[in-house]
Amino acid sequence: MSLKRSFIREILEAIDEHTISFAGGLPSQNLFPIEDLKESTLKIIDNPKVYQYTVSNGISELREQIAKRYTKQGFPTTKENILITTGSQQAMYILAKFFENKDITIEEPSYLGAMNIFRLNNLKMHGVKLENDGVDINEFEKSFKNTKLTYLIPDFQNPSATTYSKEKRDEIAKIVEKYNGTLIEDSPYSELYFNKKMPYISEKLLKNSFHLGSFSKTLVPSYRIGWIRADEEKIKSLMIIKESIDLHSSGFVQYVLAEYLKDDVKYEKHLQSIRDDYKEKADYFSNQLSLIIPEFKHEKPKGGMFLYGSFGDKIDTFALVQECLKKKVVYVPGNQFYIDKKPNGEIRFNYTHSNFEQIIKGLKLIKSCL
Amino acid sequence: MSLKRSFIREILEAIDEHTISFAGGLPSQNLFPIEDLKESTLKIIDNPKVYQYTVSNGISELREQIAKRYTKQGFPTTKENILITTGSQQAMYILAKFFENKDITIEEPSYLGAMNIFRLNNLKMHGVKLENDGVDINEFEKSFKNTKLTYLIPDFQNPSATTYSKEKRDEIAKIVEKYNGTLIEDSPYSELYFNKKMPYISEKLLKNSFHLGSFSKTLVPSYRIGWIRADEEKIKSLMIIKESIDLHSSGFVQYVLAEYLKDDVKYEKHLQSIRDDYKEKADYFSNQLSLIIPEFKHEKPKGGMFLYGSFGDKIDTFALVQECLKKKVVYVPGNQFYIDKKPNGEIRFNYTHSNFEQIIKGLKLIKSCL
Repeated sequence: MSLKRSFIREILEAIDEHTISFAGGLPSQNLFPIEDLKESTLKIIDNPKVYQYTVSNGISELREQIAKRYTKQGFPTTKENILITTGSQQAMYILAKFFENKDITIEEPSYLGAMNIFRLNNLKMHGVKLENDGVDINEFEKSFKNTKLTYLIPDFQNPSATTYSKEKRDEIAKIVEKYNGTLIEDSPYSELYFNKKMPYISEKLLKNSFHLGSFSKTLVPSYRIGWIRADEEKIKSLMIIKESIDLHSSGFVQYVLAEYLKDDVKYEKHLQSIRDDYKEKADYFSNQLSLIIPEFKHEKPKGGMFLYGSFGDKIDTFALVQECLKKKVVYVPGNQFYIDKKPNGEIRFNYTHSNFEQIIKGLKLIKSCL
Repeated sequence: MSLKRSFIREILEAIDEHTISFAGGLPSQNLFPIEDLKESTLKIIDNPKVYQYTVSNGISELREQIAKRYTKQGFPTTKENILITTGSQQAMYILAKFFENKDITIEEPSYLGAMNIFRLNNLKMHGVKLENDGVDINEFEKSFKNTKLTYLIPDFQNPSATTYSKEKRDEIAKIVEKYNGTLIEDSPYSELYFNKKMPYISEKLLKNSFHLGSFSKTLVPSYRIGWIRADEEKIKSLMIIKESIDLHSSGFVQYVLAEYLKDDVKYEKHLQSIRDDYKEKADYFSNQLSLIIPEFKHEKPKGGMFLYGSFGDKIDTFALVQECLKKKVVYVPGNQFYIDKKPNGEIRFNYTHSNFEQIIKGLKLIKSCL
């Protein structure tokens, strides 16, 4: 086992309550709909069945609610297309196990957690450069025609905050189909748009896609409930792996979520409140960043939880973060999101977890380390 | 992926509400301490932190409670020795990943779920025959000196209900130490004794053991909370794998459990009520079985959830269960618990899930299929 711990998780455990953290992907806990979740919990809490073992693919009531939402969004889905997972982290683990030892095309930079999982299951990663509107299509096709498997985060990508244009989405779908390959589309942030929702690439790839979703960013992370949407036959194969990993995801919280989601007006209102709050935070963070550290170049985020940018090649942000840690402020250096982890001048900031005061204070502390 | 689904899980999903099930390891849901869990839930439900991401090794409060209980039982343990897992199924998966591609000595018959996990992670299994008081020690040493790794269930084994004698426990510990190998001791049923608790083999192997526990059989299965107890350094290595599989186990239910376990008198009383109920059920099941199907030879269980026995070699219980399914009664045929799955006359009965009426009715239905 040569696996290293995730830098982000290590930081999460090393920092104390006085550290201002722009690392991590922590949603703002002020936005957790605690009263509504409590109400749903109380509705199911006396029923013995919510405490018993349940089926491996997830309770029918929850899969139905998730399928209904996809269908409403224009992506026809039934509960047989859904596999409930212990967070979308597990969804990725299951897929990595399913595709173990294969080659895979990924974005660079890409999600650290996914890269660790791919390494653990001996997938050979091939990076394709991300541009402002998605991966470089020529480079992508060149890589995909060999790997026939790709992992993409088209909406408010982690870490880069990039969102794919409609055109690039269509081109990716065409390429995946042309080579009869497979798309793993990771969508934890898709609902957190500030302007409008983009169509999923998977909608054009019914047989050749795995679409990953999660309640960690839209409701609460601690329940650890995510899912995979795929062709029914593929779901059946994945269920065998899921079953052997943990039999099933926590049944109790699945029942709470299924109860909560019955009222989709309530859920929609809740999502809108997150979008409003995060948009305000993103604007604020971006503006303050331009004022306090003008030498850091970035674009204003259009959704999600991250702001990404670069100092250019004069500053090594991995070296810088060690200094910042001493002053009790932390972010994730960009090199962590590349396959070779070569030092660079990039930074991923999470802007959802800190309040306005902490944002200013934290940015000034970073400035003082330069 | 050549993995087959677990026969038991398949049955669980195939049967309807009218089927009498002696299959599965379902605890009796009449014994779930719902009122007390509800009380604990209400104590933590308003605290935002129980909804946020948490550490990968499990919340400190819960690890402390588990460590305290071990220490009280004479097995000195601190929270650093504990890794919280998504059920003990995941504990096994993590260990199988840790030891992937290695050889491993197991009991025959053994736990189906573990065998599936070992297969999935390319462990080569070597079976050693179980006797009434544990594995055949000579055979065990012969196998272990090559594999240096073993997976045992010394208390009320699944499926055989066998409990290791004090002498065999000591001998196993000596052999593991002699070859500087590793013991994985799976203990989901240890607290469900009808007479007395036996010492864990791991108590004599502080550096060379992984001890697996779970709340699925003692409290409720649906929370999916289990754990691994091991040397602190080993816990750190396993945590990297755990983190990559699902980041962490459901934080919400971890807080509920930590709250519930604060009152250990209440927990002890609850455990005693399960023991009393299961002992009554075991006696009843065993007596009715002797009356209704006297040709099935078995020993009365001393704890746990299963009764195991055999028709001898005249009856193939795998063929028989297909007939039984049509009559709406089901058990797990013994061949499922062997590496080669060769048909035999053995059966594992779960006696904790059915009521007295269902026990008589189910046994009579099986008799009618003979």
